[in-house]
Amino acid sequence: MKIESALADIVGATHVFDLTVRPGSTEEVARCLALLSHEKMPVVTVGGRTGLVDATRAEDGQVTLSTERLTGLHPVDVERRQVLCGAGAKLEAVQDWAGRKGLRFGVDLGARGSCTIGGNVATNAGGSRVLRYGMMRQNIAGLEVVLADGTVLSDLRGLPKNNAGYDLKQIFVGSEGTLGVVTQALLQLAPSPGASASALLAFASFDAAMKAADTLRSRYAQVLSAVEIMWRSYYARTARALLKDAPLPVSDEHPIYLLVQIEAGEETNDLLLAALEALDGVADGAVAQTAAQEAALWAIRDASEIIEHSHPRVLSFDVSLRPGDFAQYLVKVEVALARLPNPSTLYSFGHLCDGNVHFMIGYEPSGGQGDEAIEHCVYGPLADVQPSSISAEHGIGREKMHHLWRSRDAAEIDVMNRLRRALDPAGILNPHIRFEAL
Amino acid sequence: MKIESALADIVGATHVFDLTVRPGSTEEVARCLALLSHEKMPVVTVGGRTGLVDATRAEDGQVTLSTERLTGLHPVDVERRQVLCGAGAKLEAVQDWAGRKGLRFGVDLGARGSCTIGGNVATNAGGSRVLRYGMMRQNIAGLEVVLADGTVLSDLRGLPKNNAGYDLKQIFVGSEGTLGVVTQALLQLAPSPGASASALLAFASFDAAMKAADTLRSRYAQVLSAVEIMWRSYYARTARALLKDAPLPVSDEHPIYLLVQIEAGEETNDLLLAALEALDGVADGAVAQTAAQEAALWAIRDASEIIEHSHPRVLSFDVSLRPGDFAQYLVKVEVALARLPNPSTLYSFGHLCDGNVHFMIGYEPSGGQGDEAIEHCVYGPLADVQPSSISAEHGIGREKMHHLWRSRDAAEIDVMNRLRRALDPAGILNPHIRFEAL
Ligand SMILES: Cc1cc2nc3c(=O)[nH]c(=O)nc-3n(C[C@H](O)[C@H](O)[C@H](O)COP(=O)(O)OP(=O)(O)OC[C@H]3O[C@@H](n4cnc5c(N)ncnc54)[C@H](O)[C@@H]3O)c2cc1C
Ligand SMILES: Cc1cc2nc3c(=O)[nH]c(=O)nc-3n(C[C@H](O)[C@H](O)[C@H](O)COP(=O)(O)OP(=O)(O)OC[C@H]3O[C@@H](n4cnc5c(N)ncnc54)[C@H](O)[C@@H]3O)c2cc1C
Repeated sequence: MKIESALADIVGATHVFDLTVRPGSTEEVARCLALLSHEKMPVVTVGGRTGLVDATRAEDGQVTLSTERLTGLHPVDVERRQVLCGAGAKLEAVQDWAGRKGLRFGVDLGARGSCTIGGNVATNAGGSRVLRYGMMRQNIAGLEVVLADGTVLSDLRGLPKNNAGYDLKQIFVGSEGTLGVVTQALLQLAPSPGASASALLAFASFDAAMKAADTLRSRYAQVLSAVEIMWRSYYARTARALLKDAPLPVSDEHPIYLLVQIEAGEETNDLLLAALEALDGVADGAVAQTAAQEAALWAIRDASEIIEHSHPRVLSFDVSLRPGDFAQYLVKVEVALARLPNPSTLYSFGHLCDGNVHFMIGYEPSGGQGDEAIEHCVYGPLADVQPSSISAEHGIGREKMHHLWRSRDAAEIDVMNRLRRALDPAGILNPHIRFEAL
Repeated sequence: MKIESALADIVGATHVFDLTVRPGSTEEVARCLALLSHEKMPVVTVGGRTGLVDATRAEDGQVTLSTERLTGLHPVDVERRQVLCGAGAKLEAVQDWAGRKGLRFGVDLGARGSCTIGGNVATNAGGSRVLRYGMMRQNIAGLEVVLADGTVLSDLRGLPKNNAGYDLKQIFVGSEGTLGVVTQALLQLAPSPGASASALLAFASFDAAMKAADTLRSRYAQVLSAVEIMWRSYYARTARALLKDAPLPVSDEHPIYLLVQIEAGEETNDLLLAALEALDGVADGAVAQTAAQEAALWAIRDASEIIEHSHPRVLSFDVSLRPGDFAQYLVKVEVALARLPNPSTLYSFGHLCDGNVHFMIGYEPSGGQGDEAIEHCVYGPLADVQPSSISAEHGIGREKMHHLWRSRDAAEIDVMNRLRRALDPAGILNPHIRFEAL
């Protein structure tokens, strides 16, 4: 094919296969995109493919641009606490790399072993430590991005302050590959907190758990790294699957579980115990005594893949609300699901303090009832809860783009399209992701 | 004049005077801008006019849009720690408003009594507490902006997480009124730290002061609100002018002064004393014993206006560097200034930990030596120090726009213009601010 051989001329024949191109440098990315823009050829950028909104699947005739060769990790700048990474570097590799210098990259999520820094930037990834470190946006000191026409836009200066014109990197964070291909990121690091300690706590109600989370946040803000919530159905299913016949760390008969993590150097254990003592309404709990036990608690929280394989069909949602609105909203979703002809199971978990809960809904499509009926049960009640969003951290991709109007008004969607046309007039970057008003 | 009467039809005759229009609501702003876009009539947006880069001066025939009537302060949302404010609200009014609910708006700067929230957003204002709270960008939970064509773009949802499409508010922060008129901002507040304590410390060298600042930052990160630096010329001039014949808090014979502030509730005083004990190399110092004494120390730091009136002509600079690069850079500036035919005085002060130092250079223009020669002494040596920026926090305005190329490359400047055309195709918003490559 003509386009394949032209791409092979740029990146070398071994790095083009079946319309997938794997450039090895920023310059190669730039030359590939300039060519594809010129040919008005759509291109899908792919990182670790761990995204949850069906954004990286190329359609017939579309080129896939993979960042898998852009994995360079530069030496950590210990004084400025920054590190420059290739977009294809895995999140976990970056975490380890920073860790060797006694520093920490704050963003963390279950897919750390597979997801890439470029994907994290493009989705403005969140994860379990947002309450301490913020989302990906807050951890980026500089970006290098290639625009659709091959222009290399680079701001890797990493100055804490720079108001000389617009801060262009901001527009690429969370743009899901529609405005440019991220080739490098300068990441801001934090001091490594040294030690961590976690506890799994059970509560008799969402309100009790919420109150405990508020107490933790207000009294232990500086040392609290995570407060993850799991509803019973999620906890019971993942813990049982992981632990088989071994006893669960906490019985699975409670409605709500919080996984709490404190990281504070030498004082970590004492602070965790003090924090737990300060909480009311804890029905049951387990404090990890060893690193292995701590990892085991986190494995339960991170095991959403188990749910994915528990039903013939599983849909994932990622709604954002004010934390206080959850209990009431969830009841409405449950009521709506219960009214559907086919039975379904709701698994809820997520990042409580951010107002971000993930639902996974498992069911068996049959008798004409498909995904739309399920989506209706989730998004219908969401409209009554304001403010809210259909995507807290996963982005929209193909899967949620048809629901964008639920969370953004016509003016916002119009401006998204104006920006997109300004930076990618030929419309070649991830064109399958569309911003459409109702 | 035709345009004036058309504007008067929108805002009422009492609110249009001499080509200045003072809309009283978002809707009026929208109607004014739609009209001006239609007429291709340039408009300069004006807040508190405290900006330092000559950005708000209208030229002949240009309309001035003042936000002075958009001062509404909505009730503080204590639970979410957010407050919705009109763009024309004064920063100090917002600080006080939040304070009444035991909350704090983190951004603070010397012009607090006059500058507006809209101006703070448009300039991405910094100030003295950036090391604790970040810049304006980090303190904005939502924005309402009117685009040039009158489109109202509103995201006042204030969700901690929302990845449903682009985070559009980001592009308006720091855009100096060139992309839209900010009409409302939803601000993120922090718990009020309750008490504050400050000390003025003198050091024998920049390096000694830098070392002390690093110690403070690494050990007292959570309670440290400010580390402001003043070089002797600045301290001596402002302190003497304010205190007249009264004794100075610390003698003015040291080369470098740090003004350190700790805010930590009941423990504030103890922590400040402990912090001071931890520091090496302090040559002299004074700890404020009362709120009045603390205010007096801060008045010295905030009295840059005294410098402005100390010479026939005073130029202000706002460079951004890595903190460690300052000492060396400053020497070069001093050497260059000393080589000019006319004598000049350099007053340096600013936000040490952010790598952001302000210079004010006073001189008497004569014998053909004007501002350009002075600028050359500042920006010439800056080119040798990378990374660096000609504007850390003030923006570029008319005054610095011709130097933009020193801090942004041609691709960046091109993209700024692309974005601007996308949002303001008629080019009516602050057209005097231009982004030009060399
Ligand atoms: C078990 C599991 C747990 C997860 N937990 C979380 C979580 O807690 N929080 C969270 O936010 N997400 C979570 N995710 C989702 C996912 O890991 C994140 O969205 C991640 O940031 C995607 O990175 P990736 O490299 O896999 O990107 P991909 O899936 O390859 O791509 C994602 C999007 O980014 C674009 N993209 C990728 N690389 C680039 C680039 N270099 N330049 C421009 N665009 C690019 C793609 O085109 C696509 O639109 C989880 C996923 C799994 C499987
Ligand atoms: C004594 C003193 C100390 C200062 N210290 C600091 C400091 O420490 N840190 C710092 O960052 N700055 C500082 N400044 C500069 C100045 O106060 C800030 O830039 C401030 O944010 C400007 O606000 P303003 O309302 O006065 O804006 P203006 O001066 O009126 O306008 C500034 C720019 O913003 C635009 N603008 C204003 N309002 C809007 C709006 N509603 N929508 C769109 N665009 C708008 C204008 O067009 C212009 O381009 C200081 C100034 C003084 C006089």
